[in-house]
Amino acid sequence: MEKVRLGIVGIGNQGSGYVTKIQRGDVPEMEIAAICDISPERLEWAEKNHPDVARFDDAEKMMDSGLIDAVLVSVPHYDHPKYSIMGMKKGLHVICEKPAGVYTKQVKEMNEVAKECNVKFGMMFNQRTRNVYRKLREIVQSGVYGEIRRTNWIITTWYRTQEYYDSGSWRATWSGEGGGVLLNQCPHQLDLWQWICGMPSKVYTKMHFGKWHDIEVEDDVTTYVEYPNGATGTFITTTGDAYGSNRFEITLDRARIICEGTTIKVLEYTMPTSEHISKGKVFTNPPILGESTISCNNNGDQHMEVFKAFAAAILRDEPLTAAGTEGINGLTLSNCMHLSAWLGKDIIVDEFDDDLYYEELMKRVATSKRKENVKTVVVDTSGTY
Amino acid sequence: MEKVRLGIVGIGNQGSGYVTKIQRGDVPEMEIAAICDISPERLEWAEKNHPDVARFDDAEKMMDSGLIDAVLVSVPHYDHPKYSIMGMKKGLHVICEKPAGVYTKQVKEMNEVAKECNVKFGMMFNQRTRNVYRKLREIVQSGVYGEIRRTNWIITTWYRTQEYYDSGSWRATWSGEGGGVLLNQCPHQLDLWQWICGMPSKVYTKMHFGKWHDIEVEDDVTTYVEYPNGATGTFITTTGDAYGSNRFEITLDRARIICEGTTIKVLEYTMPTSEHISKGKVFTNPPILGESTISCNNNGDQHMEVFKAFAAAILRDEPLTAAGTEGINGLTLSNCMHLSAWLGKDIIVDEFDDDLYYEELMKRVATSKRKENVKTVVVDTSGTY
Repeated sequence: MEKVRLGIVGIGNQGSGYVTKIQRGDVPEMEIAAICDISPERLEWAEKNHPDVARFDDAEKMMDSGLIDAVLVSVPHYDHPKYSIMGMKKGLHVICEKPAGVYTKQVKEMNEVAKECNVKFGMMFNQRTRNVYRKLREIVQSGVYGEIRRTNWIITTWYRTQEYYDSGSWRATWSGEGGGVLLNQCPHQLDLWQWICGMPSKVYTKMHFGKWHDIEVEDDVTTYVEYPNGATGTFITTTGDAYGSNRFEITLDRARIICEGTTIKVLEYTMPTSEHISKGKVFTNPPILGESTISCNNNGDQHMEVFKAFAAAILRDEPLTAAGTEGINGLTLSNCMHLSAWLGKDIIVDEFDDDLYYEELMKRVATSKRKENVKTVVVDTSGTY
Repeated sequence: MEKVRLGIVGIGNQGSGYVTKIQRGDVPEMEIAAICDISPERLEWAEKNHPDVARFDDAEKMMDSGLIDAVLVSVPHYDHPKYSIMGMKKGLHVICEKPAGVYTKQVKEMNEVAKECNVKFGMMFNQRTRNVYRKLREIVQSGVYGEIRRTNWIITTWYRTQEYYDSGSWRATWSGEGGGVLLNQCPHQLDLWQWICGMPSKVYTKMHFGKWHDIEVEDDVTTYVEYPNGATGTFITTTGDAYGSNRFEITLDRARIICEGTTIKVLEYTMPTSEHISKGKVFTNPPILGESTISCNNNGDQHMEVFKAFAAAILRDEPLTAAGTEGINGLTLSNCMHLSAWLGKDIIVDEFDDDLYYEELMKRVATSKRKENVKTVVVDTSGTY
């Protein structure tokens, strides 16, 4: 195999952008060999713009066609596990859009299948390719500054207008997306948060549903967490604040780290806080060793990097950007947040009851209302993720 | 009266600094006429350093002496209302150190007495004199940018070593201070928060007691609030993070405001978010009108400014920096946070049960242990408030 032949399940906003880029050669070791969508309009779009790419209106037929080696799952969230599992069982390599699914119960099953099938399975966590987060992870995970004491991420740059929510009948519904800002916008940050700082052990969330928009799901979330070592953290997000902030603060034992945009500021001490707190004089801080500012390059098309790594993994067994089985981590946080908000209780992550979560979610799905008279818009999402 | 003759109840860390400054003329319309302390060592210090100032070992005697027009209450927190009430009832003007008291029950009584007595009653909220907070309040309260949507204050610059806590047997005990970082360090920010943004209507808090220090009270606090208009907010504080952050973000309908240190950054839009959210196109933000950075002067000795205003209020009926009766606001927030953390429940501010709070506090006071073998240190607190 010289080039990976990719088939795409679902040619919506994201999918159509990928086709254009991959077909013009942005991912040298990959080509789009087939696409599949249930919408005649989307297939017409494909015929017109990419007549050389095979078209299917049924995912299984595409997977059985022999035309493809790998499949991208780019359908509504609920069906991510279904089509990922289908692909893996047919011996195809799979890359799945975020989130891994809507509830961890189904993602656990997907991960089980991934273990059994000898294929590559990756998640489209394109933000993991950003230099600023790679660097941040390296700093924290190296352990050079000791353990985490506190993490605060204010990530309110996900502003969305009502027109956005009205652009698809499934958008921001319990039955269509299974959640709001946590399921659609924040899977990246939830993944990065745990990728950089590790998984919290306890979650408590205050959540507002349709606070700023005419939607049934959450658009305003404040979460408090505790880590296994006792450190605490917050995660604040919304789609209701114009512009918003993206400020990620990580307090380590021997350094204070603040990440804003593509810049990381590190204030480093000569003595760990935990040592200074017991030895230091009244009203002193540990002596400062130095302060550094790391201005990271904002690398361009992150999705293409994920595809490049995916192709290299298939062709030469190189590492994936994000193993598919890691998709469950951010989703677990997301599910814990919803369950905490619904029940008004602390959720112990290790004891997270995915049956209860599913039950609570289905109560909401049962009364969920798809929007009527929506104007389906295929929007240009470049620069919005 | 040309000069206000002040008597000080309690010559500890703060009090002794004031005497030196006021006696050298930092507050032209005020002089220290008498001081009172129960500690012979402190009276010796006074005799040695300020032999011209009358000394008392009993507050009531000082108040009855005819030597003073006004009194500063600078004793441990629990006794703030007691001595403030005593002064007011004797016709003396009163200025009280923060917090106004430890529990709102006693502060309500103090405020009742203040209403009946025709004297000036002020709170030592010296941080209200800081230009940066005055400006911030002016911006928010002017209403020019519309209503508040979110407030996030990360105020973790209150780092304290164990030696600090070991410097007084009463420090960081339920019986001595009635709380930790909220009662000792944060009364300023709790006051400023409500002074600038108004009082929240609901409070939920996660609190850790002796997490970073060998103390029985809280040294790590994460609070979530809701405002009467539905806006949300967070307040994060600790004495356990070296250096820490002081970042106060206020999202208004037509501007995003970020205050760090003495700098205020304002990102202003041409259209309110609430209007744009319903009219704006997919993936747009309201157009930016402009961005401004206000670098405020960090005015020097804030306490002296409070004393100047207090003297001017007594002599010429000019406005106080902070009316004494406003001290209850920040304390109410503080009490709500403790009660929320103790009960694990939301506290509705208007329905705050001060009897229940008192009961819960007294349970902790009953088992509170004063530290033994402490090294009492009178420390220089300049620059630490």
